[in-house]
Amino acid sequence: MKKQSTKSQELGFGQRSYSKGTRLITKEGDFNVVKEGMSGWQGRDIYHELIVMTWVKFILLISAVFFIINFIFACLYYWAGPTGIAGLSAQGQLDLFLKAFYFSTQTITTVGFGSLSPQTDYVSLLAALESFLGLLGFALATGLMFARFSRPRRNLHYSSSALIAPYKEGLNGLMFRFINSSQNQLVEAEVDMIVSYWSAKDEVRIFKSVDLERRKINFFSTSWTVVHPINEKSPLWGLTEQDCQENSLEIIVMFKAFDDTYVRQVYDRMSYVADEMKWGEKFIPIYEPSDNEQIRINMEKLSSTKQANLF
Amino acid sequence: MKKQSTKSQELGFGQRSYSKGTRLITKEGDFNVVKEGMSGWQGRDIYHELIVMTWVKFILLISAVFFIINFIFACLYYWAGPTGIAGLSAQGQLDLFLKAFYFSTQTITTVGFGSLSPQTDYVSLLAALESFLGLLGFALATGLMFARFSRPRRNLHYSSSALIAPYKEGLNGLMFRFINSSQNQLVEAEVDMIVSYWSAKDEVRIFKSVDLERRKINFFSTSWTVVHPINEKSPLWGLTEQDCQENSLEIIVMFKAFDDTYVRQVYDRMSYVADEMKWGEKFIPIYEPSDNEQIRINMEKLSSTKQANLF
Amino acid sequence: MKKQSTKSQELGFGQRSYSKGTRLITKEGDFNVVKEGMSGWQGRDIYHELIVMTWVKFILLISAVFFIINFIFACLYYWAGPTGIAGLSAQGQLDLFLKAFYFSTQTITTVGFGSLSPQTDYVSLLAALESFLGLLGFALATGLMFARFSRPRRNLHYSSSALIAPYKEGLNGLMFRFINSSQNQLVEAEVDMIVSYWSAKDEVRIFKSVDLERRKINFFSTSWTVVHPINEKSPLWGLTEQDCQENSLEIIVMFKAFDDTYVRQVYDRMSYVADEMKWGEKFIPIYEPSDNEQIRINMEKLSSTKQANLF
Amino acid sequence: MKKQSTKSQELGFGQRSYSKGTRLITKEGDFNVVKEGMSGWQGRDIYHELIVMTWVKFILLISAVFFIINFIFACLYYWAGPTGIAGLSAQGQLDLFLKAFYFSTQTITTVGFGSLSPQTDYVSLLAALESFLGLLGFALATGLMFARFSRPRRNLHYSSSALIAPYKEGLNGLMFRFINSSQNQLVEAEVDMIVSYWSAKDEVRIFKSVDLERRKINFFSTSWTVVHPINEKSPLWGLTEQDCQENSLEIIVMFKAFDDTYVRQVYDRMSYVADEMKWGEKFIPIYEPSDNEQIRINMEKLSSTKQANLF
Repeated sequence: MKKQSTKSQELGFGQRSYSKGTRLITKEGDFNVVKEGMSGWQGRDIYHELIVMTWVKFILLISAVFFIINFIFACLYYWAGPTGIAGLSAQGQLDLFLKAFYFSTQTITTVGFGSLSPQTDYVSLLAALESFLGLLGFALATGLMFARFSRPRRNLHYSSSALIAPYKEGLNGLMFRFINSSQNQLVEAEVDMIVSYWSAKDEVRIFKSVDLERRKINFFSTSWTVVHPINEKSPLWGLTEQDCQENSLEIIVMFKAFDDTYVRQVYDRMSYVADEMKWGEKFIPIYEPSDNEQIRINMEKLSSTKQANLF
Repeated sequence: MKKQSTKSQELGFGQRSYSKGTRLITKEGDFNVVKEGMSGWQGRDIYHELIVMTWVKFILLISAVFFIINFIFACLYYWAGPTGIAGLSAQGQLDLFLKAFYFSTQTITTVGFGSLSPQTDYVSLLAALESFLGLLGFALATGLMFARFSRPRRNLHYSSSALIAPYKEGLNGLMFRFINSSQNQLVEAEVDMIVSYWSAKDEVRIFKSVDLERRKINFFSTSWTVVHPINEKSPLWGLTEQDCQENSLEIIVMFKAFDDTYVRQVYDRMSYVADEMKWGEKFIPIYEPSDNEQIRINMEKLSSTKQANLF
Repeated sequence: MKKQSTKSQELGFGQRSYSKGTRLITKEGDFNVVKEGMSGWQGRDIYHELIVMTWVKFILLISAVFFIINFIFACLYYWAGPTGIAGLSAQGQLDLFLKAFYFSTQTITTVGFGSLSPQTDYVSLLAALESFLGLLGFALATGLMFARFSRPRRNLHYSSSALIAPYKEGLNGLMFRFINSSQNQLVEAEVDMIVSYWSAKDEVRIFKSVDLERRKINFFSTSWTVVHPINEKSPLWGLTEQDCQENSLEIIVMFKAFDDTYVRQVYDRMSYVADEMKWGEKFIPIYEPSDNEQIRINMEKLSSTKQANLF
Repeated sequence: MKKQSTKSQELGFGQRSYSKGTRLITKEGDFNVVKEGMSGWQGRDIYHELIVMTWVKFILLISAVFFIINFIFACLYYWAGPTGIAGLSAQGQLDLFLKAFYFSTQTITTVGFGSLSPQTDYVSLLAALESFLGLLGFALATGLMFARFSRPRRNLHYSSSALIAPYKEGLNGLMFRFINSSQNQLVEAEVDMIVSYWSAKDEVRIFKSVDLERRKINFFSTSWTVVHPINEKSPLWGLTEQDCQENSLEIIVMFKAFDDTYVRQVYDRMSYVADEMKWGEKFIPIYEPSDNEQIRINMEKLSSTKQANLF
């Protein structure tokens, strides 16, 4: 049991935290963790949230911030009355406020047409402050926009199921296939596979790093079929489909590569639970007949399988 | 003694520099070093200082710079007299200076309302220069702001004490616990532990890198309890609490990982001195009973311990 | 055949995808792959395309975007009629539209002269929106410009042919030479060579990683002649020039280094097909007699060879 | 001789390029190489040059570019005559040109006061173009400024001489000392030393990587004395000071570390030629007596030595 405890820590979890049915890695590659009691620390990372939120949310957010800041400054200009801003010829209080709002937008964006311009010291100083804040604020906003825009997307797509298929000479294998759908070169790509299951006897989850036919490839530009040979050393040796489901088996996949286009290290995670494994199926080739000039792959075949007799 | 001299260098210090009571690493993870005689070299790194200062200081600083530069240009415009700037209708010298100041702010931010505008060659050229400087200066300021904003924070939190607790079968262990409080994945996390103590016999500080139960985990997403088993090879073997205090024991922790969100290597340092070690206490689990769907940890329990009998 | 299948995967291709004549790596270092059926995924990576397109295309593209957005806003301002914008004195509809277009350009660039300025609520709000979009849009455009400008160029130049030349004591070698034409230091440079050929018997392409005289150098600042000794272990052992052509031999070169100037990892790929190999030629030295002070190399001699008798 | 040829390539030079007296690495850490015949390739890397030139040159350069572009646009506006720009009341041709120049500066910086504003279609379009170019150009300029500003400086300082000093028990050592003068942490610092000398017999330069007492330290925050023990395996074994000078000995030092502040890999190079070696001197400690609270080093003692009897 000591040994298993050690194994658990490989994933950075304490083993006691798991009950039988917990899924460790979600389909999106996130850890299935809830952290509580963090109010004492900085529980949120604003930069991270601004970078990962959807574009729609992000645009709405900065538009809202833009509107609110202008609204606040409009109030401050409005408070100065109609003589604060030159060029005002407001009809009524609402119109006065609107003009103050327009003046604020022209100041914060530094467009400064001048048809509205500061007349008093109060408004002049406020406008100086607003244009100063505007420049800094837009810098942050645009830095965020560019950071978002230039951020690599997740371009790895995994087959919908892991397969138990015949591998070679009397051995079956656990296989899954994944593709790099981008034009980016992923170089020095590495895969690790960990098999996790519930041990009814010890009432703990077991984690075992398993052998793969190949752990590393130089260039991952198209597709890769990862194979774990189910030999005597494998924790899957002798198991049936039903065993896997009863023991809440989970196949955890960890991927690492260097993205030559974005010049960054890429990490990815994925998992298959027992219900996402197909027994006695094998993958249909993803490569299409080539016309002798280029290599062609058809990505729609990623999860295509056909029946195959297991050993 | 030669061997110890070698050990000392592992930390990049010469061993002679230590007296008995020196703390090597501060609680914030900085080295406890004073460098002198650096005037001949560039002793200060302005960029670094601008990046690490508090936000309050930073905002005050750039606001002050903004004010001072405007003040200088205001003086230069003021010097041109009331005919330099079109649109001026100044009442008195103070008002003239204020108008010159407002004109400067409108120029440097490139808002350029136009109610004040350059009339003479002198003012025109000065305004061209100021807007040129303004664009470059705001670029620097905003680059700094974004560099600060996008800079990863220190999201590691260490238990307030290191514990001497029962480890397994007749062995005690030196343990500390730390958590990753951010949502960021820290992958390929590694820990090194160095035990440092004063050798009264040789009158030098000894540094020893010690064994850990586990040096590396694949994903550090929640908490990690690092354990140094106190066996015969350990420099702590046979020591009592009093020995540790008398020899000014210090436990130096070095952490390294890759931050998947900020796409950067992360290094951290931490140390526990003898007074920060608790003997005969063990950690209370940080994991909470899960509702079968997600893993829950309660970060407020980070430093919670209970009594445990040592071997 | 199992073994060969394994070898194939080293390059991240399935071996079945190759016919005899496929060239794997183009002269520009790209993989010779077509990906199909990607509509279901995000098939295009806009950021990447904007970064790698030529400067002419890029300038044309952002100019076009600038024009189109101004055109759209001009239409919206035009729709407001001649009273929307103050300072308009349009002669006819075309002139009105042109003025609206100019007003749009002055708003989006935030130059805001003010000779044209918003008069109605509709135009005021539209101008606020346009200047807001302008600031964000220019930020993206300029972020892209800087990313393009600061992007390292491919500064590696390979000899036009690979040579089969005498190497040492009865052994021939496969050699190519390449130079680092930039002033950048490439440190910790590594080369891998893979020999690929068509196996008529098995009707598959074989891939073999081969031995090199030297795989790694500390500093790659000038030129490097990479040598594969053709001994008994080499797949080229005993082959003639004709054999190579008939079996569609391809020499795949993979390069990795750290660029000290751009502070980034650099990867490069290159290949020589059978027609690009010269038998019985050796390289003329690229170094010129030095005047005892500096080392001189003449890069024009990169591909210069002279006749040499093979063993 | 074959073996030596191999050794030479470790530095990325062909051995034939060296004559007896060539210094390989300059004091500033640059390679002592001239590259010729590069016109066919892109011989210059503009970005790199803009980043590494002095601040004075850089400021002069962008100011000159700013002036020239404004001059060109001023000519184009001037060509439109006095009716092109509204607000002009020019006295004579020079004044007209100056006004056109001021208008250009107000347009390119997007300050756009409006006292001068475009009146004709020609000027309106030109102003739109200029403000468009201005925004993109300033973005490049400021991107460069920030890249320069945030660029790490070379903060390593080496002792002015390498020493041959007594090392331990009958052995002498070759030593040099260097310091990290910045507040930055350099972690995982590594040093390599290569001894190069002219072999009169073979008429080639020999390069030998030599043993060091310690190659790697975890933290390089203050000073490090690198020691090469001169034992039988050392190429310096048995050599006298005169031998070193006659054989044009050069000690090449290569440094590598990770800069925790700038989050980047740092590489440095340095060399000592025979004239920069002192025989029978040892370093005076750089550490000062501490007041028990902090570690103090005095960087002015970096190159201080005192006499020491060699074995």
